[in-house]
Amino acid sequence: MKAVAFTGLPGAGKTEAVKVAHEQGIKVISMGDEVREEVKKRGMEINDENLGKVAEEMRRKHGMDIWAKKCLKKIREKCSDEEVVVIDGIRNIEEVETFKKYIKNFILVAIHASPHIRYRRLMERGREDDSIKMDDLKRRERREMSWGIGNVIAMADIIITNEGSMESFRKKVKKILS
Amino acid sequence: MKAVAFTGLPGAGKTEAVKVAHEQGIKVISMGDEVREEVKKRGMEINDENLGKVAEEMRRKHGMDIWAKKCLKKIREKCSDEEVVVIDGIRNIEEVETFKKYIKNFILVAIHASPHIRYRRLMERGREDDSIKMDDLKRRERREMSWGIGNVIAMADIIITNEGSMESFRKKVKKILS
Repeated sequence: MKAVAFTGLPGAGKTEAVKVAHEQGIKVISMGDEVREEVKKRGMEINDENLGKVAEEMRRKHGMDIWAKKCLKKIREKCSDEEVVVIDGIRNIEEVETFKKYIKNFILVAIHASPHIRYRRLMERGREDDSIKMDDLKRRERREMSWGIGNVIAMADIIITNEGSMESFRKKVKKILS
Repeated sequence: MKAVAFTGLPGAGKTEAVKVAHEQGIKVISMGDEVREEVKKRGMEINDENLGKVAEEMRRKHGMDIWAKKCLKKIREKCSDEEVVVIDGIRNIEEVETFKKYIKNFILVAIHASPHIRYRRLMERGREDDSIKMDDLKRRERREMSWGIGNVIAMADIIITNEGSMESFRKKVKKILS
């Protein structure tokens, strides 16, 4: 089996990369879906606060790589040995190590754009007051960094830059997936 | 003033990038030199342990960006306003923020190579027993990551890949510095 995991800070282009995978008929295993399932199972409402709380609690109880382990279980159930699988939502280095241990052909791909470009993109997406939005962006970024996403990016096997056209970025993603 | 700061994990190519700057006659301000000066001032021996201890103690007492502040002082003393300066040895995001605040034209450049390539390079440099050396490498890497270097890399304005020939890497560095 070959697995490609995408990582990157908000606004770098992870969502678009996953969209390309979907279009190519590649199965996408989302780490966030695992957290959502757990929240639902507990009868809690699906919102940012509950998702964060459950994700953290499970990490404390069962180890930093608990969500990677749950994803591995799903990959084994859903995917054949010959398939290419995309993993979405890696957040810390322990998850990377667990995937590397159990998937022989595991490629970690970081998507990068300068802060300047990422902020502009994220601002263009929203319609709220700019100054509030900028604070929210930076808060979200700091939260992801506190979880260790920076180290995941630093340890990537491949870094692709997403600062030009959407088309050139999609081409780079397709090349990696093929 | 324009300042270019290089960052990257061990084996990525920081030393070579700084060498290119030296060759071009560009002043290099080393954050490590600041720590060395402080250790010397205290009459302590210059070794890894003392450097680490003093660096950490000063961060605890005076803030995570204390070494950036000391570098800024040196830059103001040593460099003219029209000059390009290279800063070597950024370790955490607070240092990046302090430099950005005081140097209008501050460009953070991350140098990246896959772990596979970095480990091979570092192994080739040394002559010790391979298995011991590999442990040392990973320990050094983890230590830098615990200081927050991953987040510095993730927040870079430019990422350059150093996986091909030395010549092509030197060309990329020269282009940024010119």
